[in-house]
Amino acid sequence: MAEKKKLILVSNDDGIDARGLHSLIEIAKKLGDVFVVAPEKGQSGMSHSISLTTPLRVRFIQQSESLTICAVPGTPVDCVKLAINQLLPRKPDIMLSGINHGSNSAVSVIYSGTMGAAIEASLYGIPSIGFSVLDHSPLADFSIPLNHAKRIILKVMGEGLPHQVSLNVNFPRIDLKDFKGFKICKQTKGVWNEDFEKRIDPHGLDYYWLTGSFLNDEPENEDSDEWALANNFAAIVPIKIDFTEYKTIETLKNWNL
Amino acid sequence: MAEKKKLILVSNDDGIDARGLHSLIEIAKKLGDVFVVAPEKGQSGMSHSISLTTPLRVRFIQQSESLTICAVPGTPVDCVKLAINQLLPRKPDIMLSGINHGSNSAVSVIYSGTMGAAIEASLYGIPSIGFSVLDHSPLADFSIPLNHAKRIILKVMGEGLPHQVSLNVNFPRIDLKDFKGFKICKQTKGVWNEDFEKRIDPHGLDYYWLTGSFLNDEPENEDSDEWALANNFAAIVPIKIDFTEYKTIETLKNWNL
Repeated sequence: MAEKKKLILVSNDDGIDARGLHSLIEIAKKLGDVFVVAPEKGQSGMSHSISLTTPLRVRFIQQSESLTICAVPGTPVDCVKLAINQLLPRKPDIMLSGINHGSNSAVSVIYSGTMGAAIEASLYGIPSIGFSVLDHSPLADFSIPLNHAKRIILKVMGEGLPHQVSLNVNFPRIDLKDFKGFKICKQTKGVWNEDFEKRIDPHGLDYYWLTGSFLNDEPENEDSDEWALANNFAAIVPIKIDFTEYKTIETLKNWNL
Repeated sequence: MAEKKKLILVSNDDGIDARGLHSLIEIAKKLGDVFVVAPEKGQSGMSHSISLTTPLRVRFIQQSESLTICAVPGTPVDCVKLAINQLLPRKPDIMLSGINHGSNSAVSVIYSGTMGAAIEASLYGIPSIGFSVLDHSPLADFSIPLNHAKRIILKVMGEGLPHQVSLNVNFPRIDLKDFKGFKICKQTKGVWNEDFEKRIDPHGLDYYWLTGSFLNDEPENEDSDEWALANNFAAIVPIKIDFTEYKTIETLKNWNL
């Protein structure tokens, strides 16, 4: 009896038409049956948000055993919740998110809709990987993930990941020939320093555009994802969601509130 | 010379008109100068999302040295970024978020706009506290925080918090007389199990409402925030953002990708 084909759930945050999503579908099609549930519109920066006040609809674009594609007018996390709880024929073997147009390294992981989707799948016990390239352009070059992402997907399919752990994989923006391979990293310490560009509209009213730059607190740390990316590696950070700062619990207990 | 009054930044995710916000303003006014930057509309479930494709405007509702209130048509994190980088006269001494109408305990912290705002302030090195009550109603009873939140705010003002640490404070839904005080906790392990209620609209088309219930993986754990709340305590969880799952780094290194 032939081994059952793997079922691969795919989503993203750049929306159903993004080239990064379709690059990831191309990679996934060679590895199993693919079920895509992605946002109708771009959801960059939507983090782990969910739709509480609007209902969700599903628009099927393509439907077959090997490849189903549907769009949902919601967030990346909405897409994953709806896929797992309503749309998929069974629990998927793996969930892939992206490929995001733009970096999700360092603290950007918390703002990222791509990683929101991957983390949500991991909470359901599904091994998941979020992929990003360091290029915001709609026409970003995906040749490094197209050539190298398969290796890590196969490894996760074979070995699994610890319960509720996902991977945050960022690819550098360099020529394919200069790519040095994967490096296992930790989330770089640092914050976004926001500038906000203030402008005046034709009616004389102020408005603000969010802009900013990342302040790296540890640029020399070779274990950090920013260092890996700056040195032509793809950075792989294992991710788990427990926001508790355990070290501070004893301090607070001594406050005797 | 009189000591300089504390500057308190206040935001929330239920929007500028929410009773929980105005309850928090009442508490804060007794402790310093208050500067409120809150979303124009309800932003429940918006997590750590930011506005990347739309600019932000600021609508000033009230402006004086002791109390300024303005509304921003964006997310809770947008409000905090804009406040700190553009609107506030100086770095605030503390940031308060809420009081949220509804629980943000356990894994709900990741979906919460209230905690998104508090965490964002902490990333800028500002001690911050997110407050929530376990009652979604617009007319929720805030008498427990109105009587007891001041104690923890004063403690944080006096003692500070470790760098980039915030507090997630949830109050139980009980009578004021039954309140047992504060308990320092960790984030409860567990996930939301989503049901999705499928309905058919008057035109015969399907749509889905997100519903669900929390599955507690450790209901007997007296260190967990869910246990504290179920036993008439307010739960205080110290929060820090590093998504890295350090324990898994060695495993992945052995994959030799």
